[in-house]
Amino acid sequence: MTSKQTAKVRVAIIGASGYTGAELVRLLVRHPLVDIVAMTADRKAGKTLGSVFPHLAAVEREATLPGLTAIDAVDWTDIDVAFCGLPHGTTQQVVAAMPSTVKVIDLSADFRLRDVATYAEWYGDSHKAPELQKEAVYGLTELAREDISRARLVSCPGCYPTSCLLPLVPLLEANVIKSVDIIIDAKSGVSGAGRAAKEGSLFAEVSEGVHAYGVAKHRHAPEIEQALSLAAGGTVTANFTPHLMPMNRGILSSIYVRLAEGVSADDARTALARRYDGEPFVHVLESGFAPATRHVRGSNNCIIGVFADRVPGRAIVLSVIDNLIKGASGQAIQNMNVVCGFDETTGLQQQALFP
Amino acid sequence: MTSKQTAKVRVAIIGASGYTGAELVRLLVRHPLVDIVAMTADRKAGKTLGSVFPHLAAVEREATLPGLTAIDAVDWTDIDVAFCGLPHGTTQQVVAAMPSTVKVIDLSADFRLRDVATYAEWYGDSHKAPELQKEAVYGLTELAREDISRARLVSCPGCYPTSCLLPLVPLLEANVIKSVDIIIDAKSGVSGAGRAAKEGSLFAEVSEGVHAYGVAKHRHAPEIEQALSLAAGGTVTANFTPHLMPMNRGILSSIYVRLAEGVSADDARTALARRYDGEPFVHVLESGFAPATRHVRGSNNCIIGVFADRVPGRAIVLSVIDNLIKGASGQAIQNMNVVCGFDETTGLQQQALFP
Amino acid sequence: MTSKQTAKVRVAIIGASGYTGAELVRLLVRHPLVDIVAMTADRKAGKTLGSVFPHLAAVEREATLPGLTAIDAVDWTDIDVAFCGLPHGTTQQVVAAMPSTVKVIDLSADFRLRDVATYAEWYGDSHKAPELQKEAVYGLTELAREDISRARLVSCPGCYPTSCLLPLVPLLEANVIKSVDIIIDAKSGVSGAGRAAKEGSLFAEVSEGVHAYGVAKHRHAPEIEQALSLAAGGTVTANFTPHLMPMNRGILSSIYVRLAEGVSADDARTALARRYDGEPFVHVLESGFAPATRHVRGSNNCIIGVFADRVPGRAIVLSVIDNLIKGASGQAIQNMNVVCGFDETTGLQQQALFP
Amino acid sequence: MTSKQTAKVRVAIIGASGYTGAELVRLLVRHPLVDIVAMTADRKAGKTLGSVFPHLAAVEREATLPGLTAIDAVDWTDIDVAFCGLPHGTTQQVVAAMPSTVKVIDLSADFRLRDVATYAEWYGDSHKAPELQKEAVYGLTELAREDISRARLVSCPGCYPTSCLLPLVPLLEANVIKSVDIIIDAKSGVSGAGRAAKEGSLFAEVSEGVHAYGVAKHRHAPEIEQALSLAAGGTVTANFTPHLMPMNRGILSSIYVRLAEGVSADDARTALARRYDGEPFVHVLESGFAPATRHVRGSNNCIIGVFADRVPGRAIVLSVIDNLIKGASGQAIQNMNVVCGFDETTGLQQQALFP
Repeated sequence: MTSKQTAKVRVAIIGASGYTGAELVRLLVRHPLVDIVAMTADRKAGKTLGSVFPHLAAVEREATLPGLTAIDAVDWTDIDVAFCGLPHGTTQQVVAAMPSTVKVIDLSADFRLRDVATYAEWYGDSHKAPELQKEAVYGLTELAREDISRARLVSCPGCYPTSCLLPLVPLLEANVIKSVDIIIDAKSGVSGAGRAAKEGSLFAEVSEGVHAYGVAKHRHAPEIEQALSLAAGGTVTANFTPHLMPMNRGILSSIYVRLAEGVSADDARTALARRYDGEPFVHVLESGFAPATRHVRGSNNCIIGVFADRVPGRAIVLSVIDNLIKGASGQAIQNMNVVCGFDETTGLQQQALFP
Repeated sequence: MTSKQTAKVRVAIIGASGYTGAELVRLLVRHPLVDIVAMTADRKAGKTLGSVFPHLAAVEREATLPGLTAIDAVDWTDIDVAFCGLPHGTTQQVVAAMPSTVKVIDLSADFRLRDVATYAEWYGDSHKAPELQKEAVYGLTELAREDISRARLVSCPGCYPTSCLLPLVPLLEANVIKSVDIIIDAKSGVSGAGRAAKEGSLFAEVSEGVHAYGVAKHRHAPEIEQALSLAAGGTVTANFTPHLMPMNRGILSSIYVRLAEGVSADDARTALARRYDGEPFVHVLESGFAPATRHVRGSNNCIIGVFADRVPGRAIVLSVIDNLIKGASGQAIQNMNVVCGFDETTGLQQQALFP
Repeated sequence: MTSKQTAKVRVAIIGASGYTGAELVRLLVRHPLVDIVAMTADRKAGKTLGSVFPHLAAVEREATLPGLTAIDAVDWTDIDVAFCGLPHGTTQQVVAAMPSTVKVIDLSADFRLRDVATYAEWYGDSHKAPELQKEAVYGLTELAREDISRARLVSCPGCYPTSCLLPLVPLLEANVIKSVDIIIDAKSGVSGAGRAAKEGSLFAEVSEGVHAYGVAKHRHAPEIEQALSLAAGGTVTANFTPHLMPMNRGILSSIYVRLAEGVSADDARTALARRYDGEPFVHVLESGFAPATRHVRGSNNCIIGVFADRVPGRAIVLSVIDNLIKGASGQAIQNMNVVCGFDETTGLQQQALFP
Repeated sequence: MTSKQTAKVRVAIIGASGYTGAELVRLLVRHPLVDIVAMTADRKAGKTLGSVFPHLAAVEREATLPGLTAIDAVDWTDIDVAFCGLPHGTTQQVVAAMPSTVKVIDLSADFRLRDVATYAEWYGDSHKAPELQKEAVYGLTELAREDISRARLVSCPGCYPTSCLLPLVPLLEANVIKSVDIIIDAKSGVSGAGRAAKEGSLFAEVSEGVHAYGVAKHRHAPEIEQALSLAAGGTVTANFTPHLMPMNRGILSSIYVRLAEGVSADDARTALARRYDGEPFVHVLESGFAPATRHVRGSNNCIIGVFADRVPGRAIVLSVIDNLIKGASGQAIQNMNVVCGFDETTGLQQQALFP
């Protein structure tokens, strides 16, 4: 693969029949430096993408997209970059079987936890590619660009972790907040549950109501704590409580933190704004403004607001992303841009769709 | 007014053209011990209820409901109980002008804060009836039955306070949790904003997204802190962060607390379950179960779940109500039942409507 | 079974784990003349109702409801009335095996089509109880009270047919409209698809969009045409095009008809209003008013509006119901009331829940 | 204005604070051949766009967008093309006052009706620029490219008319369908009602329900009939019944038509497919497939399905668009592309956002 921006990279989308797969297609088909040359979907092999996702049928007529195949049918010698959007637990062996010439952007959880024992504890099975795990780079783009640019295997963060680590990691690294008593009340749209036909994701079960789920045992908790611990330079245990919202897209993480001695909420806001100054996709709001998920729907943006708490010494940090874009497919493409030496915003400049 | 259950009380609904007014009518028209004899709605005086709320037109055909009038047109000598659902700031003078023979169930914020200086600070105007304030009883029914039964003026709690005080007050009173670091992340449906035509309540502005609002300055904060302070026997400052949900009804308060020394989350759960044992409208779930707002939609119920936090020494308390019923009109009727000596569940036995 | 209103009927709910089953429980548990003595749910036998439908857990604590069992476990000698809410095609044999002392209120499609050949054509299998079919009464309550009162087996109409037959049958019978060119554009909430976990019923697939389905081949078409043909005294073929709406409950049938010679739309409106004058559950709006499904959500009501079309000689008839109540469980209970000689509104006086 | 594609056109957006204005900005800011040089919003003059539409704040930081001004502040000598998104009735005088060097793409209804008397009848006021009306071109792009390319003033069709005229006009012109008994049951998302704070557009009034509105008197009726009459070569009166859907975006027009003698529904489908063969934005589905509004949300596409009716001699035509894009701002930009000699798809290649 060349770093010349004129050469197109040849991309495979492994697991194209889920919502993140569809978003990868939607975005990559308009990416000027990418050719999609393979798409897989084991249970739907043989079908066209348009029959699985009618909203992409127009693309299919216009571009020359490959049909959906089984993974076995992919000719890896033809692939520069593979996006993996497979269910958790199934990616490790797939990646291990790829030739090392293929760069991998993984959207699953399979390579997110550095410690394979922690992986086994939370995902219920032993890690199938511990050697690969060692070289995997945790791809929170804004905070790991250098490592990502040299990586062969980028493990993209989960949607919830992306929303809360973007504000929390810099605040911890700068000692602006304390590492104890961090409480993350996260709210996600239903697309985060994927396209599987489950009673709990039915319209009639999800609309017109909210509830918490996976309380104190969601798999994104160890992923968040891993990153917080690295940032704080010591073990951090944090509250992470996800809630299901009656909407399609978006995550709002409402984060309640204790400020370091002598630090005000506005100091924290300023520190964060300075840290992300010039970043194309992360924006810290002015004092007094709160972000809404609908302000980022359909975009790769993360918007953050910081407020003083009525409780002295505490602050409230509000962070929003589109879970399918910055929380999944958009950040994956951003990582690919870094890996390939492209301008990081290439193909990702869509603005939010509102209303 | 007699306490014999066979005599019907004669009721006026002051402010019948809002959502809480409509809920009062819907419920009271089926209450076997009530006659609605007056309904007011200043801007819609002269109209029928069915023209303002078509979903109640069927009631109007069947029962003999009075038309909407101005407040001035009410003959107070004919009224046993007045439900007041007026905008904040306008109730004090209205109640002050009523004869003392009228019992008042107030749904506004006008008599919720014991300290009239605190009222003035948060509501931006001096209190107009400080003498009445002294006799007002804060009507969280399950926790103040005795006082309510003797009250002439019951001030019904706000919707958010109802959802979080029902679990928090007993936990504080029993010294099961500490009074510091209480964090209340509350999520409400849009009906809580009322029927006023505001850009921020439009379907296109509210659906398919979530956001926090009134961060660190919502008027329910001092009301919550007043009750927590009384329960803890000392000043409590708590975080209260409300969020707007894309749904009509329901409040979920996700409350993050620090347990007292030596107390487990399950101890807390058990203490709360014992406190509410036998209560018809408040139920504490078994260990491991989380409530959803849709489980109480359309009912006067409050459901509470308690979980251990991953952070040692902390617990997560989840509480759901229907904001228009247990959080407003249902609790108001429950209070009227107490005031009138009726069985507390009379007229309030509707089960939740799902889906 | 006695017709004395003081004796309670003993009821079995066959198929209690679907949405219509849950609605039957919710309504019957408050019906003053009913005891629920058996509930079946084959795949969920052994569970409590509250674990299957948490919104009904409160009922379970308060009343003494039976647990969910397999059908085989029902002691039919103990049952006066059986409500059958089984999937289509499975009811015929179940009813055939019941003793004739059990009155049956069937909510499935199994006995709706008089002609068993038509049944076989549309439902893909031969009828299993053709003798029972002969005695089945099509239970559109307002239009078939006499027959229902004498029936042993009442076949409740489908949700769509209920919404459009209530206006169309009287208009045809009175020769107010012509029987040709009847176009029914029907719009239903998602609960009509039941609680089965299907991709097409997922929140993410259904919200924020509308589409037609079953175009020109929906199974409610022959049911509608059967009733229209009877009303018109000759074979009627009608357009029936169902659409899926991003909402839980409600059906709006927008019906486009050709008026008989010399008849105005207002004549039609008046004829319909007169036909339903005094009916507790069916109401015809005044000229110029259009009904909304949210005006009947949670109630057993049907509201109808009639408008002149801009196209001369045509009229527009708009009819709304709650598909789970008047379109299913409410009408079923209404039929039980007729069968048992109770006041038809017993247990069905809940008003619409709005918003 | 030059037709060389390298020269950017200088654009003013008149009325930028409504939903269609926001969509114009969102799309034009990424249009490679456009510079936005003026944006007006009378009541919000002086504000930044990001404060009015936070979802566009990211654009504002990145591009150099002008602030919102009053119309009077626009220097027309600096403008090549003006998009007018003003309320109906206010555009005629604004356009009349512009220098003739400015090309106008009008999104209001002010120039849609050829006959100024018809305009006065339906819009309640006399036409203020009858001379301009004569030169206005009705901008249904696919059907009027030639005229549009030579126009100075393009009057963009309404959202509803766009959805139903795209299928109906070719079918009438080709004598595939009859011009009598055309029934258009149209379903629109709430954004079509604009951003004005009206009770009827509140979340609580619109969600979880559907209803018809403007029955037999909606202002898009004469616009539709004007185009149908031109296509049929004689006066056509059609039924047009709009319905409000609980969703943000999208229109589905379900159209019920009578086929010409000897013509089958599949003939009609084929004729329409042939007519739109090669069109980038209009697609006719294969036999048996129905379009959904969510398949076009966020795109400039129109998707059409055609079905045989069960009623002999009739067909069902289903047409979907995004009301804010193909039904408003997207089609307006498409028309600008034609007027300016650009490739018609420039800046409009966004695919649908789903879910």
